[in-house]
Amino acid sequence: MRGTLSSVEGISLEELQLAARNHGMPLEALRYPVTPVGLHYLLIHYDVPDVDPATWILMVRGERELSLGLAGLKERPRKELTVTMECAGNGRARLDPRPVSQPWLLEAVGTARWAGTPLRPLLEEAGVGESAVEVLFTGLDRGIEGDIEQRYQRSLTVEEALRDDVILAYEMNGGPLPPQHGFPVRLLVPGWYGMTSVKWLAEIELIDEPFAGYQQAQGYRLRQSEDEEGTPLQRIVPRSLFVPPGIPEFFTRARTVEPGEHVLVGRAWSGLAPVAAVEVSTDGGSTWAAAELEPEKERWAWRGWRFRWKAESGEYVLCSRARDEDGNEQPLDPPWNLGGYANNAVQRVHVTVRG
Amino acid sequence: MRGTLSSVEGISLEELQLAARNHGMPLEALRYPVTPVGLHYLLIHYDVPDVDPATWILMVRGERELSLGLAGLKERPRKELTVTMECAGNGRARLDPRPVSQPWLLEAVGTARWAGTPLRPLLEEAGVGESAVEVLFTGLDRGIEGDIEQRYQRSLTVEEALRDDVILAYEMNGGPLPPQHGFPVRLLVPGWYGMTSVKWLAEIELIDEPFAGYQQAQGYRLRQSEDEEGTPLQRIVPRSLFVPPGIPEFFTRARTVEPGEHVLVGRAWSGLAPVAAVEVSTDGGSTWAAAELEPEKERWAWRGWRFRWKAESGEYVLCSRARDEDGNEQPLDPPWNLGGYANNAVQRVHVTVRG
Repeated sequence: MRGTLSSVEGISLEELQLAARNHGMPLEALRYPVTPVGLHYLLIHYDVPDVDPATWILMVRGERELSLGLAGLKERPRKELTVTMECAGNGRARLDPRPVSQPWLLEAVGTARWAGTPLRPLLEEAGVGESAVEVLFTGLDRGIEGDIEQRYQRSLTVEEALRDDVILAYEMNGGPLPPQHGFPVRLLVPGWYGMTSVKWLAEIELIDEPFAGYQQAQGYRLRQSEDEEGTPLQRIVPRSLFVPPGIPEFFTRARTVEPGEHVLVGRAWSGLAPVAAVEVSTDGGSTWAAAELEPEKERWAWRGWRFRWKAESGEYVLCSRARDEDGNEQPLDPPWNLGGYANNAVQRVHVTVRG
Repeated sequence: MRGTLSSVEGISLEELQLAARNHGMPLEALRYPVTPVGLHYLLIHYDVPDVDPATWILMVRGERELSLGLAGLKERPRKELTVTMECAGNGRARLDPRPVSQPWLLEAVGTARWAGTPLRPLLEEAGVGESAVEVLFTGLDRGIEGDIEQRYQRSLTVEEALRDDVILAYEMNGGPLPPQHGFPVRLLVPGWYGMTSVKWLAEIELIDEPFAGYQQAQGYRLRQSEDEEGTPLQRIVPRSLFVPPGIPEFFTRARTVEPGEHVLVGRAWSGLAPVAAVEVSTDGGSTWAAAELEPEKERWAWRGWRFRWKAESGEYVLCSRARDEDGNEQPLDPPWNLGGYANNAVQRVHVTVRG
């Protein structure tokens, strides 16, 4: 079946190398409202750069040019946000045929408590000219991609960059950013896929033409073929995930559960609109029942849910699906695209309930 | 060529699932003498258990029975150690044919600053009877492996368990253990492969017969076939790794370097004896030259090394190999074994030096 895990085979060395460097969040970590450091997903295009915080400088170029050190940034107004971040490529390895890149299955997600300073006042201080259409963010990480040597760069429209909840983050879960999450400072754009939140920030620049660099024009676009322009990935489509119940078999990760009453625990999120409902199926998606949603605490943090399941001896395929207030819902089978992006098809967990 | 990366192909779904949960240390993190949390390698057999530190109890059973809470353990003598830990399966996916399990390439290593309380006084308090031959450590993580439902368990000989540097660790890099590294308390056996350092400790028991459970009798043994008893994995064989120079291509991770003088930076370790020498080859292992070793600071921490390389335009295969004071040296090609353990064949990094 399209989109089921059984379609995954023949992962290459290149994909394995990426999977060994980058990592997902083990699904049992869904139990934590804020993901502990080291369990949050991580996707690094090139290498983690070596940054000396004492000499690190952020350049901001608008009508004027600002240059800020880490201490200067920390003296500015402070804002804290709990934000669920997801990789645009999450679910890629469940597509058939499989687009080759970082081979995510389900776990490229995490939620952190970020602290930093709002971007808007900084941009206004630098001066947003009338001709400015986008803000370009450049990281210190450098590599080759699509035959182009580049520093990692992404842009936002001026309107999006001026949103109140866009911050330059210098803390994660109460401590300095870990090196792998962008130390000393990263962009944080809540509700958007992770590639937007440029790590190891070096420069912010108001530009008069839409940015046409690799990560914007080639990468991170929904399209069916190379010669299609496609549409850019932006906000996170709805997804729900749950803690696989019972105990795993080491190699297959197949689950065994004791009969009786269980509480399935999960989280759901959408960057498009607040989560409206989560449903659970125990028969692989034929029938569905509503899960109980926890109250929404912060707009950009995932929302907890639970589902009481009276497990009787037998074989089950547990699934959950989220729907947001705009009516966007997780599909049973994913629509395919060339880059393997935004595959939010429902999670399927095979469970054996003992007799 | 046996043991080269080009032999890796056709990784299965099961292996990918494990690679997405567990993760290695990106090699550029070799620049840190102590690996930041989240970059240290991680191998979890089953699930990260959910432990409430307020009710957690450690049972110690010898001639007497002790029961300790977390606060009680922290009141005992404190010991800090910097320890390099490596997974016994590191290098598994570079063997041909590839043993199927967690498909490590090179990166299943990390070094942390651990703090805890020495095990020996606890065992002596519980009473080490004359008939005791081993100490059995039981974790809270539970799963199925080799068709056997089990909590994760490993044993040590009484002699090994009484070593001065064996501790029950409750801190990693200055903070509480992260959940994924064994919160609230794990065993730490410096110099041994990581499977020995049982996480999420629940029980310690003096036993009168050698432990014959799955992780000791079936897993973690060097053998050529299933019907062979084999020898148990114990101490870490020598390995050196280095930070791949230059910049990577995103998908292949191939490296491009500017011509001129470079300093290769790496680390080396051995659980068998102190590191005696590291050598570097720029021609794939045909010729070797000595690297400069940093002084050894602590016996169980990896040792830094550097190598000046005048890079001229062309293609190179960089390698390093460590030798310890007992004469153990990394091989160019790995000896194969059924479980894919202890493959310490030299790292090979293909580098293009620009013209």
